[in-house]
Amino acid sequence: MTPDEFRDAGHALIDWIADYREHLNEMPVRAQVSPGDVRNQFPATAPQDTVAFDALLQQLDQRVVPGLTHMQHPMHFGWFPSNASLASVLGDIASSGIGSLGISWESCPALTEVEEVTCDWLRQLTGLSDAWHGSIHDTASSAMVVMALVARERASDFCKLRGGLQATPSALTVYTTEQAHSSVAKAVQLAGFGDANLRMVDCDPVHRSMDPAALAEAIDSDIRNGLQPALVVTSSGSTGITAFDPIDDIATVTEARGVWLHVDAAMAGSAMLLSECRHLWHGVERADSVAWNPHKWFGTVLDCALCYVRDTETLVRVLSTNPSYLQSGADGQVTQYRDWGIPLGRRFRALKLWFHLSLDGIEAIQSRLRRDLDNARWLAETVSAHPDWELVAPLTLQTVCVRHLGDHAGAPLSGDALDSHTLDWVRRINDSGQAFLSPATLDGRWFVRVSVGVERTEREHVEALWTLMQASVQDA
Amino acid sequence: MTPDEFRDAGHALIDWIADYREHLNEMPVRAQVSPGDVRNQFPATAPQDTVAFDALLQQLDQRVVPGLTHMQHPMHFGWFPSNASLASVLGDIASSGIGSLGISWESCPALTEVEEVTCDWLRQLTGLSDAWHGSIHDTASSAMVVMALVARERASDFCKLRGGLQATPSALTVYTTEQAHSSVAKAVQLAGFGDANLRMVDCDPVHRSMDPAALAEAIDSDIRNGLQPALVVTSSGSTGITAFDPIDDIATVTEARGVWLHVDAAMAGSAMLLSECRHLWHGVERADSVAWNPHKWFGTVLDCALCYVRDTETLVRVLSTNPSYLQSGADGQVTQYRDWGIPLGRRFRALKLWFHLSLDGIEAIQSRLRRDLDNARWLAETVSAHPDWELVAPLTLQTVCVRHLGDHAGAPLSGDALDSHTLDWVRRINDSGQAFLSPATLDGRWFVRVSVGVERTEREHVEALWTLMQASVQDA
Repeated sequence: MTPDEFRDAGHALIDWIADYREHLNEMPVRAQVSPGDVRNQFPATAPQDTVAFDALLQQLDQRVVPGLTHMQHPMHFGWFPSNASLASVLGDIASSGIGSLGISWESCPALTEVEEVTCDWLRQLTGLSDAWHGSIHDTASSAMVVMALVARERASDFCKLRGGLQATPSALTVYTTEQAHSSVAKAVQLAGFGDANLRMVDCDPVHRSMDPAALAEAIDSDIRNGLQPALVVTSSGSTGITAFDPIDDIATVTEARGVWLHVDAAMAGSAMLLSECRHLWHGVERADSVAWNPHKWFGTVLDCALCYVRDTETLVRVLSTNPSYLQSGADGQVTQYRDWGIPLGRRFRALKLWFHLSLDGIEAIQSRLRRDLDNARWLAETVSAHPDWELVAPLTLQTVCVRHLGDHAGAPLSGDALDSHTLDWVRRINDSGQAFLSPATLDGRWFVRVSVGVERTEREHVEALWTLMQASVQDA
Repeated sequence: MTPDEFRDAGHALIDWIADYREHLNEMPVRAQVSPGDVRNQFPATAPQDTVAFDALLQQLDQRVVPGLTHMQHPMHFGWFPSNASLASVLGDIASSGIGSLGISWESCPALTEVEEVTCDWLRQLTGLSDAWHGSIHDTASSAMVVMALVARERASDFCKLRGGLQATPSALTVYTTEQAHSSVAKAVQLAGFGDANLRMVDCDPVHRSMDPAALAEAIDSDIRNGLQPALVVTSSGSTGITAFDPIDDIATVTEARGVWLHVDAAMAGSAMLLSECRHLWHGVERADSVAWNPHKWFGTVLDCALCYVRDTETLVRVLSTNPSYLQSGADGQVTQYRDWGIPLGRRFRALKLWFHLSLDGIEAIQSRLRRDLDNARWLAETVSAHPDWELVAPLTLQTVCVRHLGDHAGAPLSGDALDSHTLDWVRRINDSGQAFLSPATLDGRWFVRVSVGVERTEREHVEALWTLMQASVQDA
């Protein structure tokens, strides 16, 4: 395709995207397709003939759009918001169009340095001191794996240089809570620690935050038993109920024992743009690493996860490679981001952060976040005030965790019957296409997460959802 | 930003990209900036005021473009081609614009199913049987880590479920060659095997391909010593000299000993679109996993790495998570790609493969690859025919590995003097901005890689490069 053909097709595509964004609120929130429906519309073999661009856009409409669950829909309250602000989309388009390759500073100096600049801007905007150095990963899950590896290597005096983890004299252990994201347990498995060396530390029964005394006890007990504590992972805004672990008290435990402390703020990092929320990660300066996702509530299009560390020397020592074909005269004077994560090649992701901040502006982003906090507060208060509904956890940010306690006739339910009622009403809403909510479990029982924070979700949408929720528990 | 504001800005950006692509051949190939030059043009803190889109494009031109090493420049012969075909860029733009989130089939059925479709198309196009199942990773480096983890878990009977790698009874070992990409040694370290358990198997002295007898001997010797061989990594098109390991003979060794065989075809996978190249990975059907990068020579914009396995059950068993908040009624009937790799969330990357194949067409892509093979052959023959130049390795694909043997006056050089001459003439070309080449070492001595394969590189560019090379060895 020539640049001129791209020009024509690109204009048509921009219009297609603008139209999609304008009209997506007219579509069902969750895709209404069955497994295989999308796949079956594609030929079994690659097209032999080329397709004209307008025909391809028609195929996109016919084959793909019905199979989209619209994350940008104002009635999407599932999982966590995955905003893709159009300002950041422009930055991502620039990145694709330029087609650069980040494998060393030399391969694209601007890619490296704009990443340094934007990571530093976000550091300041979230109130972190200049002791922190950040980079962009695809997801917080990948950052979690990287930090598990760094903690493992630090605790084992760089076992990778010898016989690896299989030759360490004492087993390394990891600590988190049942509220932690699934990526923590996965990272523990992938980094080779093994399930037997992962401790689920007790939590406060209401806020579900890690109990620092229980953590200290678990670590000390492992040390007495000849094990070697390597890593503590705290959650700042857990996926289930947005629980926050008390970082400052936990850091007192980890510092004294030389254990790496990682803060998973995948969701709540966005909230740290608001000074009134920063108490929620009080003590973060004492952690060793912290990761959060601008591609969630903040709204920089996926994939954009930030991970900050204080000790870049250890980080690089764990992850560096320096083959002859990647060496250049700039080595030693520049950042080589390939040594900060798993992949060698990287996209120019910093452009989307830069465009997002420059075009939307930090004040508008902060106002939107405050709007969402206010909407979530309204819903939480409304739900609490209703005798048939309960909040299953205190509201900490923008995800309201609810349960309807009665059957459709108002009779109280519990146990399996309550579970089945919960899954039933949420399924009814999701099947209707009018809104989307995702359920989760707490202490083995289902509840429903209402995660407020899509860019286009206004109070009227939250009110409409509440009306839908009340109707859905009655239609049996 | 509203959809209408996006429409205006998007059109301007499409034109900017088209202009950039049209005119990039007028710019120096390698960025001519010094460390810090790009960073210093940005304010130290995030912009407080918003910027109009045309002003932002001006900043992009002024601050960023001088810091780009133009991978799409027809005179770029460095590393491996990192083509970003405009057809695939359109697919990537669609992905960003839609803003979907792949964390489960339900979160975007189309994202999952179009990935299944396009991976299967590419499977067929590269001549793999339907025993293989693919998914898209960011890079082959990440796929390498995943396969190292899968091999580790398979060989240890899923040690992750118990005490992890630190509790395995005998040390697991890995085999590759000195020619393998740096990501292999990195994956071995990250997966916890340790440097002491990585064996560099002897190679054929000319083609630098792994010696299957030496591999068998290394494995058997480790078994006799109580170790447990877990993984063999072969290269199909190594980064230095595009060496190919003899997969079929190696598979005879690994099959008999139950060792996982991974084929790193990051570069050469593209060549498998051409039936005349497939002998180069003869035996690939007998491997356990194979990865290659459409984002290299094939030309689907970064990041797009394919990884195929035959045994998806083991893959999923190593990588799966199933927290309550990701469960849905479709579970069990659909593919959950989160269980095929490290990150939880994924972009809709399949769109760029679909757009690329549909708009450019497979025949045009194949013709371009054949053009590049032909141009590389021409250069290799030309270099060989010149008494002062040598090919340091036989040409296998599109990367010509050369050395100029004399000083500027024609006197023969060797050892350190030859190394310094080599680095000198290549630096002179790169500094000039007229072309870009990347040097590498073989047996500890420098040579220069001329990697032909940028989408816009025609014979005339290769001829111009040869002229430049001859001039550069004379200007001392």
